[in-house]
Amino acid sequence: MIPDVNADRLWQSIIDMAEIGPIPGNGNCRMALTPEDTAARALFLRWCQPLGLRHEQDAIGNMFLRRAGTDAAVPAVAFGSHLDTVPTGGRFDGTAGVLAGLEVLRALEDAGLRTKAPLELVNWMNEEGSRFHPAMMGSRVAAGALSLDAALAVTDNAGISVAHALAESGQAGPLSPMPRDWTAWLELHIEQGPVMEETSTDIGIVTGTMHARYFNLTIVGEPSHVGTTAIGRRRDSLAAAAAVILAVEQIALTAEPDGRASATWIENTPNARGNVAHITRLHCDVRHNEAARSVAMEASLRQALSEITARRQVHIDIDPYATFGPILFDAGLGALLRRKANDRQLTTRDMTAAAGHDSVFVAPLCPSAMLFVPSVAGITHNPAEYSTKEQVARGAQVMLDAVLDLAG
Amino acid sequence: MIPDVNADRLWQSIIDMAEIGPIPGNGNCRMALTPEDTAARALFLRWCQPLGLRHEQDAIGNMFLRRAGTDAAVPAVAFGSHLDTVPTGGRFDGTAGVLAGLEVLRALEDAGLRTKAPLELVNWMNEEGSRFHPAMMGSRVAAGALSLDAALAVTDNAGISVAHALAESGQAGPLSPMPRDWTAWLELHIEQGPVMEETSTDIGIVTGTMHARYFNLTIVGEPSHVGTTAIGRRRDSLAAAAAVILAVEQIALTAEPDGRASATWIENTPNARGNVAHITRLHCDVRHNEAARSVAMEASLRQALSEITARRQVHIDIDPYATFGPILFDAGLGALLRRKANDRQLTTRDMTAAAGHDSVFVAPLCPSAMLFVPSVAGITHNPAEYSTKEQVARGAQVMLDAVLDLAG
Repeated sequence: MIPDVNADRLWQSIIDMAEIGPIPGNGNCRMALTPEDTAARALFLRWCQPLGLRHEQDAIGNMFLRRAGTDAAVPAVAFGSHLDTVPTGGRFDGTAGVLAGLEVLRALEDAGLRTKAPLELVNWMNEEGSRFHPAMMGSRVAAGALSLDAALAVTDNAGISVAHALAESGQAGPLSPMPRDWTAWLELHIEQGPVMEETSTDIGIVTGTMHARYFNLTIVGEPSHVGTTAIGRRRDSLAAAAAVILAVEQIALTAEPDGRASATWIENTPNARGNVAHITRLHCDVRHNEAARSVAMEASLRQALSEITARRQVHIDIDPYATFGPILFDAGLGALLRRKANDRQLTTRDMTAAAGHDSVFVAPLCPSAMLFVPSVAGITHNPAEYSTKEQVARGAQVMLDAVLDLAG
Repeated sequence: MIPDVNADRLWQSIIDMAEIGPIPGNGNCRMALTPEDTAARALFLRWCQPLGLRHEQDAIGNMFLRRAGTDAAVPAVAFGSHLDTVPTGGRFDGTAGVLAGLEVLRALEDAGLRTKAPLELVNWMNEEGSRFHPAMMGSRVAAGALSLDAALAVTDNAGISVAHALAESGQAGPLSPMPRDWTAWLELHIEQGPVMEETSTDIGIVTGTMHARYFNLTIVGEPSHVGTTAIGRRRDSLAAAAAVILAVEQIALTAEPDGRASATWIENTPNARGNVAHITRLHCDVRHNEAARSVAMEASLRQALSEITARRQVHIDIDPYATFGPILFDAGLGALLRRKANDRQLTTRDMTAAAGHDSVFVAPLCPSAMLFVPSVAGITHNPAEYSTKEQVARGAQVMLDAVLDLAG
C-alpha cells in the first residue's frame, strides 16, 4: 500500500516558506547565506524535527537530513534541491524540490512506513550563485568539482567571503564536503519554461542537460571626454559592450529552440557622465542541447568579439571560466519515473534541462534523475513564478512512488 | 610695461599639483570633496599665502582669492577654473586654468604692479560632476541655477551627501552662494580636442558653447531565467539598453562634426548571471553647436527609444533632467583676447566649447569669455592628457595681458 502525499500540507509549506524574504509581487529574495536564507534553513529544520531525522551539515553549508532504514548496511536513496533564490525570485525554484522531498518523508511517517534503505533529504548551499559565484556551489564542492578552499575564498559584491558568511550564519558544518553513500539521487524542480504547459504534460522526465559555456569578458578602451571627442576618435568600452550584448542575442536567435545565449551582468568604468567608458566587464554564456552546437556557438561568439575588437579599437579579454554538461541522467531512473507517472495516469514528456541544477554535479557520482513540474506561463526567476498545488503534488507523488521502489 | 608670466613657475605648479591624487600613466583622480581634492585646495591656499590675497569661501565650497585694487569703489575682474578631476583624469583639465590665474597674480606681484580694479581668482567646486551630480555644481549654485539646498542634498554612490562631504572636508564656507561684483570673467582651459593642434592654433577664442541636453533613462523589462527563456519571451532591459547605446552612437555620427551624443553611465538590475536583467538605467546626452540641431537630435533619440520600446516590449522612462547652453560669450571680451594674442604674435581661432564649463553659468551674470590652449593629440579626461609648458604659458600670458587691460 503506497501512501499518497498530502497536497494541502505540501502547498502550505511552500506558502509558509515564502513568508521568509518576501518581495513585491509574491516573490522571494533569499540569496545564499543571507539572514533570509538562514531563516529558511532554520524553518526547514524545525519542520524536520518531528520526523526524527539525523541532521548532518558539511563545511560548505550543505544540509543532509537522514531517515534511517531497516537495514543499516544498505546505502541511501537521496533527493532534494535548494532553498536559496535569486534576488527577484519566485516561491518555487528550488524550494518546491526541497519541500516535495520533505512531503515524501512526512507521508512515509504518517503511513508508518520504513524503507529498507535510508532516505536522505538535501538542501544544497547557494545553487543560484546570485550572491556568491559560481552557481551550484554546494553540490560543486561536494562533488569535488571546486575545492573547498576556493569556494570559501569567493567574495560577494560587498567583499564578504563565503567563509565569513558561513561562519556568521552558523551554517559551516563539521563534515568535509564529499560524495555520500547514495545509490540514487532524484531532484524535483519546476520546468522554468512553457513547454509542459503548452503540451499538457504533468511530469517532465529530464533526460539530460544542455551543454553550457560561461565567459567573463573584459573590454578595454581608452578614457576620453564625451563633449569633445568624436565617435571615430573614441575607444568606447561601453559601446563595444553594447555591440557584444546584441551579438550574443543574435547568436541566441540563431540557436533556438535548442540553444540559448545570454548577457546579463555588466560593470562599467569609470561610469561617469562626462567620460567615455574605458573598461567594461560583461558576463555571457552560450548553451545548447548538443555539445557540438554549443562549441559552434562559442566560435560564433569569438568571431563576433574579434570583429568588434577590430572595428572599435578595443581589447577584449575572454575568460572562458566555466562549462557544464552535457549531462545525461540515468536512463533507468528516467524509465522508473516515467513508469511511476504513467501508473498514476499522468502524462510525461522527455525534456532537456536548460538551466544549471545541483543534479548536474551529482550525476557523475551516482545514478541521478530529475523530474519537472509545469511552470505557469513559463515564467521563472520572477516573483510571478507559479505552479499549482496539484502540479507540485503530482510531482511529489511520483517522487514518493519512485523512492519506495528504489529504497525497498 | 606689461610683465611676462614665468613659464617655468607655472609649469612647476602644474607638476606639483599633479602629485596630489596620482593615478597610473601620469594622471589624476581628485574627485570633488575627496581627501585628494581637499589636499589640492590646501596646497592652492598655501601658494596664495605670499600674495596677500583675501580668501572667501561660500557654502557650496567655491573659493574666491581676492587681490585688492587701488580703487576700492571699482568692482573686480575675475578668472579661474576648477581643481577637481574625473576619476581617470589628467593634469590639465581645470587645473591649468586655476594655476594660470595664480601665475597672473604672481607675475603682477613680482612686477610690483597693482591694478585699479581688484582681481579675483576662483576655484569652483565640483566642475566635473563625477562624484556628485550635476557637473558645474559650484558655479551652478552661485549663479542661482540650482538651489543650495538641492545641491547639498545630492549624494554620491556611497550615499554621502554634498552637505556631509563639505562639512567633513572643512570646505563649507560662511558666504551665501550668489553672483559677485565682477565686471568681467575669464577662464583659461585646455581645448580637450584636436582642432588647435591640427590647425597650429596657439590660442582658441571660445565664442560660445554647444547646446547640450541630458537624459536619465530607466528601462524596465521583466525578470526571467537565462537558461530557459527564449529571446522572444524575454523583456530584457540590458539588451534594450545595448540597443539604446548603439542608437545614441548613430545619432552622434549623423550629427558630426558639430554635434556629439554619448551614453556613458549604466546601472543594471539584478545584474546576476542567471537572470535576464529587468531594470537598466542609462545616462545619455546630445549636444550641438546649433540649438535647433540639438533639439532635432533629441527628437531622433526619442524616436529610437520609441522603436526600442515597441520592439523589445520594455518600458523606457525618459527624464530630460538638464540642458545647458547655447551660451554666447561676450564678443567684446573675445575681441580683446584675440587682440592680445595677436599682439604677442600668437595665432588664434574662434571655437565652440563642446564640454560643459563653469563659464557657462557665469556668462549670464557678467561679460565672460574663455580661451583655450591646445591639447596634444586631442586627448582629454585621460591620464595622457597633455599640453606643453609653452602652450600653457602662452595662454596665461594672454590672460594676464587682457586682465591688465580690463583692470586698469
